[in-house]
Amino acid sequence: MPIRSRIEETIAAAIAGARLDPAPPALGQALDYAVNPGGARIRPTLCLSVAVACGDDRPEVANAAAAAIELMHCASLVHDDMPCFDDADIRRGKPSLHRAYGEALALLAGDSLIVMAFETLTELPASDAGRALALMRILARSTGMPGGICAGQGWESESKVNLSAYHQAKTGSLFTAATAMGAAAAGSDPEAWTELGARIGEAFQVADDLRDALYDEDVLGKPAGQDAVHARPNAVAELGVRGAIRRLEDILSGAIASIPSCPGEAALCEIIRAQAERLMPVIPARMAV
Amino acid sequence: MPIRSRIEETIAAAIAGARLDPAPPALGQALDYAVNPGGARIRPTLCLSVAVACGDDRPEVANAAAAAIELMHCASLVHDDMPCFDDADIRRGKPSLHRAYGEALALLAGDSLIVMAFETLTELPASDAGRALALMRILARSTGMPGGICAGQGWESESKVNLSAYHQAKTGSLFTAATAMGAAAAGSDPEAWTELGARIGEAFQVADDLRDALYDEDVLGKPAGQDAVHARPNAVAELGVRGAIRRLEDILSGAIASIPSCPGEAALCEIIRAQAERLMPVIPARMAV
Repeated sequence: MPIRSRIEETIAAAIAGARLDPAPPALGQALDYAVNPGGARIRPTLCLSVAVACGDDRPEVANAAAAAIELMHCASLVHDDMPCFDDADIRRGKPSLHRAYGEALALLAGDSLIVMAFETLTELPASDAGRALALMRILARSTGMPGGICAGQGWESESKVNLSAYHQAKTGSLFTAATAMGAAAAGSDPEAWTELGARIGEAFQVADDLRDALYDEDVLGKPAGQDAVHARPNAVAELGVRGAIRRLEDILSGAIASIPSCPGEAALCEIIRAQAERLMPVIPARMAV
Repeated sequence: MPIRSRIEETIAAAIAGARLDPAPPALGQALDYAVNPGGARIRPTLCLSVAVACGDDRPEVANAAAAAIELMHCASLVHDDMPCFDDADIRRGKPSLHRAYGEALALLAGDSLIVMAFETLTELPASDAGRALALMRILARSTGMPGGICAGQGWESESKVNLSAYHQAKTGSLFTAATAMGAAAAGSDPEAWTELGARIGEAFQVADDLRDALYDEDVLGKPAGQDAVHARPNAVAELGVRGAIRRLEDILSGAIASIPSCPGEAALCEIIRAQAERLMPVIPARMAV
């Protein structure tokens, strides 16, 4: 089955389970709204690509791992959009969850999705308990405190920010979890795969910085130049456009070089290269040099 | 080691771990604020009491289970107190977390505590993976959708409420989890222990209804008569004071009768009886009949 179908089917089954009687209907709808239609599903795709490269000897375990990562990511988007954080009106081209369902259900939908991410892994058979436990440990560390996405978001409430901890926790941690969990789901050593995830996370950060600096609101679907407005650290401000593009290329070569030897190494390199092409920004004509 | 010390030490270790470098300091403080000083720690006490009654052959597993339940309970208090739900100013005699730290950190503290509840169980050794997996499955089902505390809170956003689903999910689910997890942590069948938890949860609900109807604000530490004001279902409104007390006595006898045969059965009956005495309201002199 194609990777995208594996992801969608596993997520759909988790959401359907959460909406069974006696679920309160509106919260059930809100859960569906939070995860569908999905975005690029980058993290679970990365997770399953790594699992496949490692032999994918327990596809059900890998599917659960991928779905868990995406559910956690969706939870973080719902909570990050709320008024006490980004106060975002739009997410994935439709009203943000709290705009559509109110703050109470947005808060509960995020909470339920965090629980559902773990629950998806707890439903694995007892014969997979060892792998399930290892997967949930990685998931927990990459999402909670002191180094997961909650910690990353927490840095935004500090007057003095540890920038490397902030980026690693807020963006890097779920990418690192994606590769590590893909490996662990297939019985490989997750540690050997954390560098790949970390570098892809860095690449996304730099690509985001480039898009923020290069594109206008029409292309981005959100206000442009926000890093400059808020004086946030940005690779373009630090290195210039060409320097940032060079940095992005270096990170992506490093990512590919970090891939451990495994049965599906060549195919995985191709997948990462294709993703990398999509990350490279198209320089608008007005800025071409 | 006394049960209370086992609970406090395990929770303290979890919070200390969450505050390690590179944690953002304010969120770390907020986590500590959310769990200390604790209330009666009723749910983890019940969990460990059941584990001890079942032989307590893996005390570390039981400690983790008890701490996980209390961390999840604290998470639910932090989120329930927020403006989009109860908008509570006071919790356990001090400002509610969002009043002390702001909404952003309250939201994140709740999220982090949910993750930490699972994480505490994921840190158990691989040799306990089977029990850890079973424990996390119970924890997830009792906290998420469709029947956990998130679902319970979700009913408050519905115009037509399924009252039995609401009470079971909002109050009952964590009590049921407490007894089931205590048994599972000690290698006993959790199913046999769910009735005890369910009945204790019901007893708490009726006792709460009695306190709301009988006591004034000075005793309660919060506004009295709120069920009548909000036309919420209340056992006293339905049965009268004497009827509600009789119901409470019946539920508690049923709870004790439901205790499965186990090595520590007699001691556990004593513990439940002592808890029951504390639940019985003292009828104020002005209402004595």
